[in-house]
Amino acid sequence: MTTDPFALALDLARRAARVGEVPIGAVITCNGRVIAKAHNMREHKQNAIYHAEVLAIMRACKKLKSWRLDNCEMYVTLEPCPMCRGAITNARIKKVYYGAKSDSDLNWTTPYENLENAESQKLLRDFFKSARQ
Amino acid sequence: MTTDPFALALDLARRAARVGEVPIGAVITCNGRVIAKAHNMREHKQNAIYHAEVLAIMRACKKLKSWRLDNCEMYVTLEPCPMCRGAITNARIKKVYYGAKSDSDLNWTTPYENLENAESQKLLRDFFKSARQ
Repeated sequence: MTTDPFALALDLARRAARVGEVPIGAVITCNGRVIAKAHNMREHKQNAIYHAEVLAIMRACKKLKSWRLDNCEMYVTLEPCPMCRGAITNARIKKVYYGAKSDSDLNWTTPYENLENAESQKLLRDFFKSARQ
Repeated sequence: MTTDPFALALDLARRAARVGEVPIGAVITCNGRVIAKAHNMREHKQNAIYHAEVLAIMRACKKLKSWRLDNCEMYVTLEPCPMCRGAITNARIKKVYYGAKSDSDLNWTTPYENLENAESQKLLRDFFKSARQ
């Protein structure tokens, strides 16, 4: 068993390929120690969210009992997609090392419509006002 | 119980506020029928991924036993963050209706470093080559 986090991410990517998943692996370290690892599981779980990076973040949060991963670094075999980059930012991950640029472009863009609903923002304003008090 | 999906999303946002979560709710419909709903659960679960939209997508995928939600629409009380927008795209959601523009900007950007590792891309190339055969 390797202890180099990037080599471990590559091992996970190979494992993904063996089970028919797109070969991407991710490892999260905290103060240099591996605390979470995952490979892509989208097909097996039929779940659009289950990219290696998101699964690794979920596991790291569980392990540290915190949604903040400020002392953590991620090693991932491929440049993360926009969802995963957002997840990495939301989790405050300190740094990401990736193996290669991604050249895949998704041809799909979901259209968005703003309903301009006053209640939506009032709920947020009231919540943060009472949180500050 | 309301059957208007956006009103239902607002109910979920109110429920989130009552339990101390930032009040955001999301509902997914498939051919006009509600198939998944969620509110933000980041604090309770201490999980950076558990935004209302991501939880709703995970539940909808489970319900439909598919990562593709092409016939689904999302109703969400606030404009989704970059992670959730990426998740919505990855799940091929047909359309998103949101209640209000988000004015929150995250002050954190994770730095990325490309390790330019040849094996990472070879794994992907080999995988897609054998998948095409």
